[in-house]
Amino acid sequence: MRSTKTYHVRAQLQADYEVVCTDNILDPASDELVGRGRQPGTHAQRRFIVLDQAVDAIYGNSIRAYFEHHRVECRYLVLPGGEQRKVMDSVVAVAAALDSFGIDRRREPVISIGGGVLLDLVGVATTLYRRGIPHLRVPTTLIGLVDAAIGVKTGVNHGCHKNRLGTFQSPTAVLLDRRFLASLDERHLRNGAAEMIKLAIVRDERLFELLEEDGDRLVEERFQGRSPAGERVASEVLHRSVRGMLAELEPNLWERELDRLVDFGHSVGPAIEMLAGGDLLHGESVAIDMAVFTTVAAHRGLLDDKAARRIIELLHRFALPTDHALLDEEVAGRALADTVRHRDGRQRLPVPTGIGKAVFLNDVTQDELRSALRHNRAEAIS
Amino acid sequence: MRSTKTYHVRAQLQADYEVVCTDNILDPASDELVGRGRQPGTHAQRRFIVLDQAVDAIYGNSIRAYFEHHRVECRYLVLPGGEQRKVMDSVVAVAAALDSFGIDRRREPVISIGGGVLLDLVGVATTLYRRGIPHLRVPTTLIGLVDAAIGVKTGVNHGCHKNRLGTFQSPTAVLLDRRFLASLDERHLRNGAAEMIKLAIVRDERLFELLEEDGDRLVEERFQGRSPAGERVASEVLHRSVRGMLAELEPNLWERELDRLVDFGHSVGPAIEMLAGGDLLHGESVAIDMAVFTTVAAHRGLLDDKAARRIIELLHRFALPTDHALLDEEVAGRALADTVRHRDGRQRLPVPTGIGKAVFLNDVTQDELRSALRHNRAEAIS
Repeated sequence: MRSTKTYHVRAQLQADYEVVCTDNILDPASDELVGRGRQPGTHAQRRFIVLDQAVDAIYGNSIRAYFEHHRVECRYLVLPGGEQRKVMDSVVAVAAALDSFGIDRRREPVISIGGGVLLDLVGVATTLYRRGIPHLRVPTTLIGLVDAAIGVKTGVNHGCHKNRLGTFQSPTAVLLDRRFLASLDERHLRNGAAEMIKLAIVRDERLFELLEEDGDRLVEERFQGRSPAGERVASEVLHRSVRGMLAELEPNLWERELDRLVDFGHSVGPAIEMLAGGDLLHGESVAIDMAVFTTVAAHRGLLDDKAARRIIELLHRFALPTDHALLDEEVAGRALADTVRHRDGRQRLPVPTGIGKAVFLNDVTQDELRSALRHNRAEAIS
Repeated sequence: MRSTKTYHVRAQLQADYEVVCTDNILDPASDELVGRGRQPGTHAQRRFIVLDQAVDAIYGNSIRAYFEHHRVECRYLVLPGGEQRKVMDSVVAVAAALDSFGIDRRREPVISIGGGVLLDLVGVATTLYRRGIPHLRVPTTLIGLVDAAIGVKTGVNHGCHKNRLGTFQSPTAVLLDRRFLASLDERHLRNGAAEMIKLAIVRDERLFELLEEDGDRLVEERFQGRSPAGERVASEVLHRSVRGMLAELEPNLWERELDRLVDFGHSVGPAIEMLAGGDLLHGESVAIDMAVFTTVAAHRGLLDDKAARRIIELLHRFALPTDHALLDEEVAGRALADTVRHRDGRQRLPVPTGIGKAVFLNDVTQDELRSALRHNRAEAIS
């Protein structure tokens, strides 16, 4: 080894999973929950199931009845929800429970049923446990259905930073059943709508129009299609959201490219969310962030006033905030600096240039931030 | 969404890294440590460096002088060694230090210099932090050089299980500098030799012969080539070990295939290592495990007695154990059951069928284990 000798290691990892929109997965006649991730030719015998406490309270009996019907030996782990519990200690607790169940490395997919917080947390645990075991994700919130559950990102919070520790995980599958939304409260529906609005603004004008026209009905009917018109629009907005999100994610699954349209709403938003400590839901922080950079774009003349007004009005129609008492210049400046570290030294800020169109900015100044914040605060008060 | 609609997500992740055998990387004239992972066209300005306490005591001054010479702003984090500290809490502590340094996501590779324990731990931290930041690995022990550092596995212990939580990480690069071995104590040299012997047994007869013929000289000269003959053999055994290990790993980097020759020595060994709680080094537990399954193979008639004797004698020549007071039938049985869970329901036990050859067994019985353990204990006493 006197002289330098170099060995090259090269290999390809294939990510391959299905996002399945299906109805009534708790109906014992459905094979989806029990069949996904099952080894060919075998019968599912054991499953480790993680439930959000709120999901357990409403659907716990149906879930247990489903697996009893299919004669599966189950271990249930019920976890409290909330960003506060989304920390590494909870991941270690899940790992301890997996140990005590003696889960197989390959043939017993962990099934998690809950909101984005639960799926993110169990995602970290199942990526780390034995360096990865299968994970079947079942989101029960709107934000889970259209955002948190369908990509490859997992995460837990650390210190005052949201999702500072996490992994990329190709799930066994993701099952989207909008029937769970029937029991979701209005605030959480609006929270999920924020991520739909995000996609609408940066890439889907038709989705924007549907949300403008039928937003009230969607929330009122909880995306259940209680009227024929409600059914048509619920189905269309959900599909457009899922399809649009996956179209943005798939070519850039591991974020090699850091100019990401889906980061709209996620530049200073996550910092406000953490500062507010549970007072703000994720989608609410996304709404505030979208309002900031919509105004920045309008002030620069990149976005005409009419489009900017439509965006702010759509957020307000969904009762989403466009300002927050904690969001001052200094906080926004610090949050942006951390985002720049996350985006490899550049701002890469998606800002709308019309409804369904966006560009990236890299030179937004502290003055522009201040002026946008002042403008939005004045509008929010008026 | 009444009817089922499925979206397929498919993408490929490319792992691509170099394992570089090079000399004297702490020589200020070398660009390796400071240049690897540097963005093209930029000058390295900041680095976060994690050092094993023992490495810091011996090489701390040279390391600091090296980076001062290259005018790099460094933050040093010095961690105590030992399997006991290789836990998730230490990972979280590394993450907190990365936060306080304000590390960039892409352009400031973390450099870790130490043994396998340190590299495994920092590997977990750098995979989780912002879902992955660059990591340049510099092993300073023999087991690090030929095994722990060069693949993609990271890990921390959890409960009584070794590496129960971990990730796959494609490092920025791995720099192998055998000059660090000059300060390694004999026991740690022999510990690393166990992994070389493993590769020799399952796939490289020539390596086995070199270790038989020149093992004493290698340990005495600490692989530094203090004599011309010592230089020749040190260079050859190190290269054969690294090349052989990478040849086994590369086609199966993420362990999609669970029949792995490099798992020889790792079937009941890790459980003994954790039980012994710091009394046994990893390579020592590997040696004990290799002795068990060598005897199993001999008792089955898969391995002739002469070859079995050569294997046991080579382990003894390197002063490696072939038995342990804690390794009884029950412990071995439980360890094997856990290994079966890790190997997707089958034993997949590599056992030698000659020097440089091995097969996988899936039907080793508790009786065979008992009889091998008894045999090895009797031999060890005699």
